[in-house]
Amino acid sequence: MNNISETIAALATPLSASGIGIIRVSGDKSIELVDKIYRGKKHLTDYDANTINYGHIVDFNGNVIDEVLVSVFKAPHSYTGEDSVEVNCHGGIYVLRKVLSLIFDTGIRSAEPGEFSKRAFLNGRMDLSEAESVMDLIESGSEASYRNSIRQLSGFLSKKVKKIRSEILHEAAFVEAALDDPEHYNLDGFDSKLSVALTRWTIEIKKLISSYRQGSLLKEGINTVISGRPNVGKSSLLNFLSGHEKAIVTDIPGTTRDMIEDRVVLGDFVLNLVDTAGIRKTSDMVESIGVKKAIKAQSDAELNLYLVDSSDNLSDEDIKFLSDFDRSSTIVLLNKSDLVSNVDSDDICRYFKGHVVEFSTITGKGLDDLKNAVSDLFFDGNLDNDKFYITSEQNYNYLNDALKSLELVRSSIANGLSEDFFTSDLYDAYKSLGFILGEEVEDDLVNKVFSDFCMGK
Amino acid sequence: MNNISETIAALATPLSASGIGIIRVSGDKSIELVDKIYRGKKHLTDYDANTINYGHIVDFNGNVIDEVLVSVFKAPHSYTGEDSVEVNCHGGIYVLRKVLSLIFDTGIRSAEPGEFSKRAFLNGRMDLSEAESVMDLIESGSEASYRNSIRQLSGFLSKKVKKIRSEILHEAAFVEAALDDPEHYNLDGFDSKLSVALTRWTIEIKKLISSYRQGSLLKEGINTVISGRPNVGKSSLLNFLSGHEKAIVTDIPGTTRDMIEDRVVLGDFVLNLVDTAGIRKTSDMVESIGVKKAIKAQSDAELNLYLVDSSDNLSDEDIKFLSDFDRSSTIVLLNKSDLVSNVDSDDICRYFKGHVVEFSTITGKGLDDLKNAVSDLFFDGNLDNDKFYITSEQNYNYLNDALKSLELVRSSIANGLSEDFFTSDLYDAYKSLGFILGEEVEDDLVNKVFSDFCMGK
Repeated sequence: MNNISETIAALATPLSASGIGIIRVSGDKSIELVDKIYRGKKHLTDYDANTINYGHIVDFNGNVIDEVLVSVFKAPHSYTGEDSVEVNCHGGIYVLRKVLSLIFDTGIRSAEPGEFSKRAFLNGRMDLSEAESVMDLIESGSEASYRNSIRQLSGFLSKKVKKIRSEILHEAAFVEAALDDPEHYNLDGFDSKLSVALTRWTIEIKKLISSYRQGSLLKEGINTVISGRPNVGKSSLLNFLSGHEKAIVTDIPGTTRDMIEDRVVLGDFVLNLVDTAGIRKTSDMVESIGVKKAIKAQSDAELNLYLVDSSDNLSDEDIKFLSDFDRSSTIVLLNKSDLVSNVDSDDICRYFKGHVVEFSTITGKGLDDLKNAVSDLFFDGNLDNDKFYITSEQNYNYLNDALKSLELVRSSIANGLSEDFFTSDLYDAYKSLGFILGEEVEDDLVNKVFSDFCMGK
Repeated sequence: MNNISETIAALATPLSASGIGIIRVSGDKSIELVDKIYRGKKHLTDYDANTINYGHIVDFNGNVIDEVLVSVFKAPHSYTGEDSVEVNCHGGIYVLRKVLSLIFDTGIRSAEPGEFSKRAFLNGRMDLSEAESVMDLIESGSEASYRNSIRQLSGFLSKKVKKIRSEILHEAAFVEAALDDPEHYNLDGFDSKLSVALTRWTIEIKKLISSYRQGSLLKEGINTVISGRPNVGKSSLLNFLSGHEKAIVTDIPGTTRDMIEDRVVLGDFVLNLVDTAGIRKTSDMVESIGVKKAIKAQSDAELNLYLVDSSDNLSDEDIKFLSDFDRSSTIVLLNKSDLVSNVDSDDICRYFKGHVVEFSTITGKGLDDLKNAVSDLFFDGNLDNDKFYITSEQNYNYLNDALKSLELVRSSIANGLSEDFFTSDLYDAYKSLGFILGEEVEDDLVNKVFSDFCMGK
């Protein structure tokens, strides 16, 4: 782990030509070190906190490198909680590299990915669940994932977890107090009082746990294949969905997936459309590797959009596939519904009992039905705007750990065990929930969380 | 032309996931309009100029859209010279779009590309030559082009042009004064005095004019083809040069060129490597379109890197090509010089009198020689670090216009014409040079210059 006392710098905007590029600097010495290469009306050290100041970045020979605006922030009122400087340069790749390299020459080191947010966490500016939501927010690709991450950033999850933790702590402390000082604290009826609380906590925690699959789909998108016989309109559907609203493809580690042809926004959801165009017999070696990948993609897919040409008759192949499909992950699109129809929903329903949508990539007919079908399969018919979804696998695991500890308490009660049996399990639940907030977490976990961050954040 | 009294906004950082994304807002009402969707300790209108303030962007129902820092600038102390606001958001694509759309909902309109810089120019914050250099700076891809653009941004060209203009004006005014008031102003010996000044101006202007070709090569890069027989190592050279240091490919209109395979930095220069892999006979229709393009690219190229396999014998084809090449635009690379050599420079020199470089894409041998050869062909052997290069075709034309007017003055003197003949030509030269600074330029020219800018600048 790198030394938190060092001053760090990184580019906080993408390295690509644009109006403004920002280099973020944080640490005790950030203001005085950047001042070495700043020329303005005053020294940076003489500006008030929260000012943004015109000037130039100059090299050690006094040559002007860029015309800049420099923001000055003083601890603890900054993103990291440390003294910080943000240098707003012209957004040219070459010029940003030059200024950044000059900043390193003053003795400032390059920040690791996520190190600014890590410092914010370590300095108590945000808890771990809030810090995690920063990357969710930046990467959000649909209204629902955006809404969920801004809610987590605003402390929704933290508040819920803190409330349960404080109640658990209260009960555990009461047991300890009663065991220490039975004259003043009475445990009569405590079991049933605790049972009530256990039920309340368990319901809350289970609600969060059960939101994970959906949260993960919101965050990552739904891996989707478009399948069907040749010429039923698979490419047209892909183009139709892509043209509709393209999803955001980020270059942050972990979001690049080899097989994804496109990410498209469908209402509240992001569909990761996986290319299966190549699923067919082939003797070509290179192509056959692609085909194997595609077959694997299809079996990994969370959603299968199966197209049928409704202007044509159902083939034996269609019927075989339709009979085999899992209706919890398949939507059948009766495509070309703008033409004279030879196949209708009833024909499909003889073989497949799931969602069937009459669709036309020409007229756009069926788009809302498709959205509703997706919502029905993955979000029980409606994506609740006010519901909060957890998106992190770690948090999912911590919540399950907490739940297990609470179940142990419940079984201790059921088995009539004495109260001192409860406390260690209550503390375990308390501790597991604490990990979500980043309390008592080990350094390596903190490093793991923040290493997924992008540079400059 | 859009109304300068309107308040405008645009994203000033690239739309791609990153730590920070900035939305720039400028215009009389920028502070009060953004305040409608800002919640912080105070109203934005109550903050001092040049402060950067923590808060939230909220929608009209009070829902938090993002956690932000907002900079406040007051006229005339801003980039545009107008009241301005910069909203520093989380750098997520979705969240930036949301905040931007909310900003438009307050009555602020979307800025046109370059409109911020256009306003800076119209409000007298920078002259036209300085404004032009902003995009050069942002797009600069090598040390030399960066250095040149920062010099122009710092007013190097403006100062030079202003100095000549003021001297011309002085002389023209003197003639007018003398003609009006011959008792106090004496034109005796004025001709020879003016001739001396003319020579000085002409030298300066010619120096700038002659820098244009090189300036344009610095700015745009040198269009380069890699040619040679099959298997001499063309692809290896391309990979070697690309791997060495990739040039910057921007997505700003005008910089995308269909045929460019890669832009690579070679020392101080950017080479636009043009793909000619497809130059061969073909019966395939689609491919043949590509081949025609490639042949055209080769004839348009400014630099031809011709590869010969030095471990093999020269073929008749090699000899034919070598004899035909223009040595002012060709460098012969004796590739595979790490192997036993069958062909050396002397063999080449029998057919080709230009630059021959022993090269190896395996060992990197010859790279410096190649840089020197390019420098020799295009920059007379050394790129002068202190020399200023003009990069704009418009400025090149204005300088030529000014030169012509001054030549007319010189010929009037030679022909013994009376002084009043000079003044209108002197004024013409003065006016042509003024266009470089943006003085007395028509609206449509201003629009043309700024329409090449990127968004948010």
